[in-house]
Amino acid sequence: MREIKIGILGFGTVGAGVVEGIQKNGALMAERTGIVPRVAKIADLDIQTDRGLVIPDGVLTTDALAVINDPEIDLIVELIGGTTLARTFTLEALRQGKRVITANKALLADHGKEIYRTAQENNTGIYYEASVGGGIPILRSQRAGLIGNRIESIFGILNGTCNYILTRMEREGLPFAEILADAQQLGYAETPPDLDIDGIDTAHKAVILASMAYGAPVPMSACSTKGIRGMSASEIANAEELGYRIKLLAIIKDNAGEVELSVEPTLVPKEHMIASVSDSFNAVFVKGDIVGETMYYGRGAGRLPTGSAVIGDIMEAAADKLNDVGVPVSVTMMLQRDSLTYCSADNIEKRCYVRLSLEDKPGAMAQVMTIFGKHNISIASVVQKERHAAGYAPVVILTQEAKESEFSAAMDEISALAVSRHVPVRMRLEDFE
Amino acid sequence: MREIKIGILGFGTVGAGVVEGIQKNGALMAERTGIVPRVAKIADLDIQTDRGLVIPDGVLTTDALAVINDPEIDLIVELIGGTTLARTFTLEALRQGKRVITANKALLADHGKEIYRTAQENNTGIYYEASVGGGIPILRSQRAGLIGNRIESIFGILNGTCNYILTRMEREGLPFAEILADAQQLGYAETPPDLDIDGIDTAHKAVILASMAYGAPVPMSACSTKGIRGMSASEIANAEELGYRIKLLAIIKDNAGEVELSVEPTLVPKEHMIASVSDSFNAVFVKGDIVGETMYYGRGAGRLPTGSAVIGDIMEAAADKLNDVGVPVSVTMMLQRDSLTYCSADNIEKRCYVRLSLEDKPGAMAQVMTIFGKHNISIASVVQKERHAAGYAPVVILTQEAKESEFSAAMDEISALAVSRHVPVRMRLEDFE
Repeated sequence: MREIKIGILGFGTVGAGVVEGIQKNGALMAERTGIVPRVAKIADLDIQTDRGLVIPDGVLTTDALAVINDPEIDLIVELIGGTTLARTFTLEALRQGKRVITANKALLADHGKEIYRTAQENNTGIYYEASVGGGIPILRSQRAGLIGNRIESIFGILNGTCNYILTRMEREGLPFAEILADAQQLGYAETPPDLDIDGIDTAHKAVILASMAYGAPVPMSACSTKGIRGMSASEIANAEELGYRIKLLAIIKDNAGEVELSVEPTLVPKEHMIASVSDSFNAVFVKGDIVGETMYYGRGAGRLPTGSAVIGDIMEAAADKLNDVGVPVSVTMMLQRDSLTYCSADNIEKRCYVRLSLEDKPGAMAQVMTIFGKHNISIASVVQKERHAAGYAPVVILTQEAKESEFSAAMDEISALAVSRHVPVRMRLEDFE
Repeated sequence: MREIKIGILGFGTVGAGVVEGIQKNGALMAERTGIVPRVAKIADLDIQTDRGLVIPDGVLTTDALAVINDPEIDLIVELIGGTTLARTFTLEALRQGKRVITANKALLADHGKEIYRTAQENNTGIYYEASVGGGIPILRSQRAGLIGNRIESIFGILNGTCNYILTRMEREGLPFAEILADAQQLGYAETPPDLDIDGIDTAHKAVILASMAYGAPVPMSACSTKGIRGMSASEIANAEELGYRIKLLAIIKDNAGEVELSVEPTLVPKEHMIASVSDSFNAVFVKGDIVGETMYYGRGAGRLPTGSAVIGDIMEAAADKLNDVGVPVSVTMMLQRDSLTYCSADNIEKRCYVRLSLEDKPGAMAQVMTIFGKHNISIASVVQKERHAAGYAPVVILTQEAKESEFSAAMDEISALAVSRHVPVRMRLEDFE
């Protein structure tokens, strides 16, 4: 049995989950791996609040730097959050050659390149399984089990809050604002909810997945991002009627050598596995050129699920440290090339769902169809719903694949038609073909 | 860049998949990991057949032992199959301190203890991701991502042939024998199909999953095994009507310290993720005490998916060899304890689906219900179907949870009733609660 001494920075929700997990199953982990994980220090500005855990004397401290500098401590677990102090501490620990475990997706999305390079220069590692998909071992699957695969595409439901809201809207038929307020009260959504519902959190995770898939840190600016704010219950009902569900989907594709990357509400066929992912669960669907389709599913957030992922990284970092492994694959995979080329948002080929309000006049539909035709957009199906009192009828159209720039131009022209009322609603549709 | 020399034993379907994968993506794998995988030798008795691959001169040989004995070769990949030569070669390579990668579930299920111990005694490793779930990185997830978890339960669809047959029976409403014959013609089922349809292949994999979950090699005798041979289309239709699908399910549970282990056709609720796993896909649903519910899905067999898993192991074994890691977790996790205690098949608590044929007489149902009551089996629902011409009516019953021994006794008594015609059909029902 070998022992590894761990210093934890940040004793919030996830920090407490990690400590709880190690207290509960540390002996089992030692039996399994031959390595005893010992939490030597926990740094937090607040060391008074009761986290419901018994912490031995001398473990809690308010001095994070002292933990990093402690020569007895082999691994640093960064669970502070944010991108200022967390960045400083992470870089400092790496510069000292220590291995760092983090759950901080914003930190990696914004400062990944600097962090991976610092790890490499100091012959050490950064481990970040918990930054994507909570307890789901998705990054590890990508960098180990699927290491022999060129990644063709990744589709991810990566934000539990959004998936929870969409699932409840679908089940209960209630408006977005009402479900959001309820989710906030129940603790499923934060206040303010912007990072989640505007898709930023999903984009952070998508950027990390894409970086690992294609071998270089991807900037947030490469991800075309749209959230679920203001999602209308009628879109969800229309999708349902047509055999689809709406999910906030991260889509990553190798588009003929260019990386295509977006986060947006997307219609997915009900019979596809990813449509069955409900409530606050996450899932990642990965298609590799050798393995074909695979999927990974589980809790994407929460004290213990995220703690489980951090603990998996702790044990891997511990083995790497004790075996003197040097720079691990979690770093080398991110630094295969200096930069990537990206498919511009305008050039992304996609299918779309479009809802229009058309005046009930002869020729109205013909004008719309002419515009679609002009922009090389083929129509897969059209449903005209019952006419409203005011003489306008909702029309729902599913298109075939076309370029985003064509869609965008067509929508502008349709909006400008005299027979068109309201701004048309448009969403991506993904059929996984 | 460091190089690793690989010797492959067995150039059949999977062997060719591994070589194809390395030829296709070897350079990418080297970029990602810093390790160049080089196939130095391939041994097979047949080195004439064209596998559609270009193999450099001097690589093919008929002498497997010479490959094992070659001091230049660091890793041995055993893809011979069977449990005689494969066992001899695997043990010999391990005794020489070489790392061995295998996809051979029967070998591990039957001789696992000897193999893990030989690896340990010789300070080396055996890697066997491809033995369970084909391309799905399920064992790696268990021994790395979920290392901090006590495993509460595992539910697996582990045999693509059975899942393919059940899916087609459900979709097409055709009899078992007809679909099986068609599956054999299409190459989805082997001739003879016994290993698959009698559940043995699933049991091999279940035994490996259970061994890793609970820390000791589990003997095949601990797994109560029943296949799908002769599955009736009416059972599938009845299940469908009640909101269930029938899957050949491996069920592994920590049952109050005893390991519960079985393979049997099982009704699963249609809305559960595992019910969406169709065609020849596999999936494994794992519940850990820290992470909660997770699921892993993908192709469970086939040249390239299995090749993908073997390649993942090759790269891990290569890193372990180059970093002088000693005995890896894939070995230590299997040797935590000498033996386990098992829940006897009779003591397994389960829900059941029961189909009876009852004479349409007053009191017939009462007699059946009295027997259930006597054996402490509560009824969740009863559907009496339309009466047959001969005056017998099919009755479908879903029970609450009760002991297998009680079910077994009750079925005997019901069979013996004068009002009962045909032997009652009984299957497990799993609600994942």
